[in-house]
Amino acid sequence: MPDAQCLMPNAQLIKPRLPGGFKDLLPEEFAARQFILDKTVEVYRSFGFQPLETSCVEHLETLSGSDETSKQIYRLFNQEPDFTGESLSLRFDLTVPLARVLASNRSAFNLPFKRYQTGYVWRGERQQKGRFKQFLQCDADIVGTDDPAADAEIVLLIDAIMQSLGLKNFTIRLNDRRILNGFILSLGLSPADINSFLRILDKLDKIGWGGVAVLLSDKTTRDENGQETAGLGLSPDKIELVGKFITAKDNLKQIAADFAEIPALQAGVASLRKIITLAAAAGVKSPHLQFDPSLARGLDYYTGPVFETILNDIPNIGSVMSGGRYDNLMERFSRDSLPATGISLGVDRLLAALQELNLLQTTGKSASALFVPLDDAALEKCFSLASELRIHSIPCEIYLGENKKLKKQLTYANQKGISICLILGEVELVQNVIQLKNLISGEQRNIAISDLFREISKIVTSDKQVVSDILV
Amino acid sequence: MPDAQCLMPNAQLIKPRLPGGFKDLLPEEFAARQFILDKTVEVYRSFGFQPLETSCVEHLETLSGSDETSKQIYRLFNQEPDFTGESLSLRFDLTVPLARVLASNRSAFNLPFKRYQTGYVWRGERQQKGRFKQFLQCDADIVGTDDPAADAEIVLLIDAIMQSLGLKNFTIRLNDRRILNGFILSLGLSPADINSFLRILDKLDKIGWGGVAVLLSDKTTRDENGQETAGLGLSPDKIELVGKFITAKDNLKQIAADFAEIPALQAGVASLRKIITLAAAAGVKSPHLQFDPSLARGLDYYTGPVFETILNDIPNIGSVMSGGRYDNLMERFSRDSLPATGISLGVDRLLAALQELNLLQTTGKSASALFVPLDDAALEKCFSLASELRIHSIPCEIYLGENKKLKKQLTYANQKGISICLILGEVELVQNVIQLKNLISGEQRNIAISDLFREISKIVTSDKQVVSDILV
Repeated sequence: MPDAQCLMPNAQLIKPRLPGGFKDLLPEEFAARQFILDKTVEVYRSFGFQPLETSCVEHLETLSGSDETSKQIYRLFNQEPDFTGESLSLRFDLTVPLARVLASNRSAFNLPFKRYQTGYVWRGERQQKGRFKQFLQCDADIVGTDDPAADAEIVLLIDAIMQSLGLKNFTIRLNDRRILNGFILSLGLSPADINSFLRILDKLDKIGWGGVAVLLSDKTTRDENGQETAGLGLSPDKIELVGKFITAKDNLKQIAADFAEIPALQAGVASLRKIITLAAAAGVKSPHLQFDPSLARGLDYYTGPVFETILNDIPNIGSVMSGGRYDNLMERFSRDSLPATGISLGVDRLLAALQELNLLQTTGKSASALFVPLDDAALEKCFSLASELRIHSIPCEIYLGENKKLKKQLTYANQKGISICLILGEVELVQNVIQLKNLISGEQRNIAISDLFREISKIVTSDKQVVSDILV
Repeated sequence: MPDAQCLMPNAQLIKPRLPGGFKDLLPEEFAARQFILDKTVEVYRSFGFQPLETSCVEHLETLSGSDETSKQIYRLFNQEPDFTGESLSLRFDLTVPLARVLASNRSAFNLPFKRYQTGYVWRGERQQKGRFKQFLQCDADIVGTDDPAADAEIVLLIDAIMQSLGLKNFTIRLNDRRILNGFILSLGLSPADINSFLRILDKLDKIGWGGVAVLLSDKTTRDENGQETAGLGLSPDKIELVGKFITAKDNLKQIAADFAEIPALQAGVASLRKIITLAAAAGVKSPHLQFDPSLARGLDYYTGPVFETILNDIPNIGSVMSGGRYDNLMERFSRDSLPATGISLGVDRLLAALQELNLLQTTGKSASALFVPLDDAALEKCFSLASELRIHSIPCEIYLGENKKLKKQLTYANQKGISICLILGEVELVQNVIQLKNLISGEQRNIAISDLFREISKIVTSDKQVVSDILV
């Protein structure tokens, strides 16, 4: 319903265009996405997570960090006289706003605070195929405890969501940044080299171990601008250590034994041990949960355990749920630290995956039956009958177009995926019947109007799957 | 879960502030709003409405209309090198974007198209107490038919939503702009006078009929800037006609008879007759549905029937669902007209009303029970038991804080509104029992771990209302 001022009569016509990088969701796509979100939120809630919805708009200073991020942030302005010059901006993730809420009003929250949030975020990235400037996130975070039990619960969330979406063949990859960073530093590299090391390691899937080994040994390399800079220049024995390290997949014990002399690494090992033990107690273990010492997830954000989730039937789609521990949550706002761990659902990727795997149990359909009135007297009777069905929780609709031609109305039902048409005209009104036409089976018969509810419930009950979709 | 680039280590601390005119929703408020939205969407779906979600961001030219609106529109900009100079803006309602989608891709829609949409809109209005710059709308529209049957269905939607929210004492006020405009023109006023007339009529509740009569008779008046301009200067006999007109509440027949010589008005009467007949067939009639000839709803937007909904116990809160027919939907984009009618839920008002009337059947609560582990061995057992309960659809959580002091954990349960605590320590583990503590009744007893599911289901089932809230 519109605002009184929004349309301009007699104005020049405007070409209806959606800006690049943004999209609309038509009914079927919306229903498919809703299926994923409903299942996910149900899982979050079953673990005691609570909803927190932050404003889409924040002060620019709350958001802006690195140059890279600042470039992507959308700023807002309008021309109201009371515009105070405050720099308003659209949020680009759901985590900084969470930190802002907690920092400004910590006493309102019962720690550990477990929250979930579904919401759009905006990033003005350079336009790329398949990348959007507005996308939906569906996050869960546990704030206020650094116990690995919280990270274990995040692993359980991932498992429960995958199961609830009907995904069976998945792997939750698990690592701890202290293991990875501790190992890198043990090679004699400096903290400033960690990111270079991770960028090379990230190429493992693409160029294989041989290619990675060459890059690690290079004494010079070229940066993004083509400038020659110092490479890591690792010696052959150190490269052998790297090989040994990254091949210890699913073997935390071996990592612990092989690198016993690195204390930082051992802290990570202890943390993962607890996560793996607790997850196993809840029934989540290998092959669904796998330790992978090469997993990094981003460059310098996470501080402890990190997770990602691969669908083994379509690994190329990338991780569908990822996250980790970020004990630096509050550092932007406060010197008091507040540890946190969390996860984000890749809604668009998951949607594509479920479509590809044919697991979307939903339709864009909304009603069980269409009333097809052939004239205005019949229309009145249809209003009465439809109301009765709805009172009994049977969703149904009445054809409302002016065109009362039967063919037009049946086409409408077909296009909307409604199989039951209830046709009512002068003849039927006199006989006190309604003509039931099943567009799928072709069945056609008159039923007494007094039997309508009973007959429709029978059909609807026999087609239970469809109904549960509709009523969700 | 955050973006790797969003936080800046060692940066200056930033004050955590939410911009004025924006708000966050804490768990209880979110749950309350969700209760309203779920009920509303369930009703929309039961009538065969389908979800359509448009982008939050539009081209400025798609949105901007009158000066008044343009001032309120938030524009977006960022500093990416590929920024094309396109003027991106945040939508300020859900109707213009609907028109944009239909105009650009009409063949994708099966007309009449019945859509619903829940989404934020943004308006950079001058800041006022209780007015927000970001607010949620929840609209339903029927596009592609000018049959009053569609308007009748909108009336049924309002009634069904009110009933489903537990609101009994409400009035849907109904009028047709052709009746009101036809009458105003019949007084000898020009189309340009309509808005002045409506502005005066709008004061009826505040200054009474006497005050309105004086304003209608004034030969001069002052505009917003204090400039003297021509008033309507109605003669006493015309003012008497106005009095007769506006007092014909709930009496369409009288209006039809008294003003039989005004053809435009008669078109409106015919339309309302059909709406009232069809609504009555579906059980919606006086006193829930009332014709009110003085109802206008905005100045020059609506073209036919208009509706608003008053809660009779708290009329001051204003209309909680309003809308009307706007057959000019597409005029911005196309010379082909596409008739439309629709409604918008006043989410914030309704939330305030349900709170005031004590009708919110929801809690911020998310879990039925809290596991309280007293050490790490107990924690592992709790992970296993909680998983079992969740598999049986009993939402529950485990205390995850590092502090394993019983008092701290019980306080956590209390603050989160969880009444059942399941305490597990060394002693209980040895005896294979768990200590159940009901924080409301004070009951405390040991139960065998093997009986846990059975015992908890008993408690949960006896507290059904709470469970259904939780599981929704």
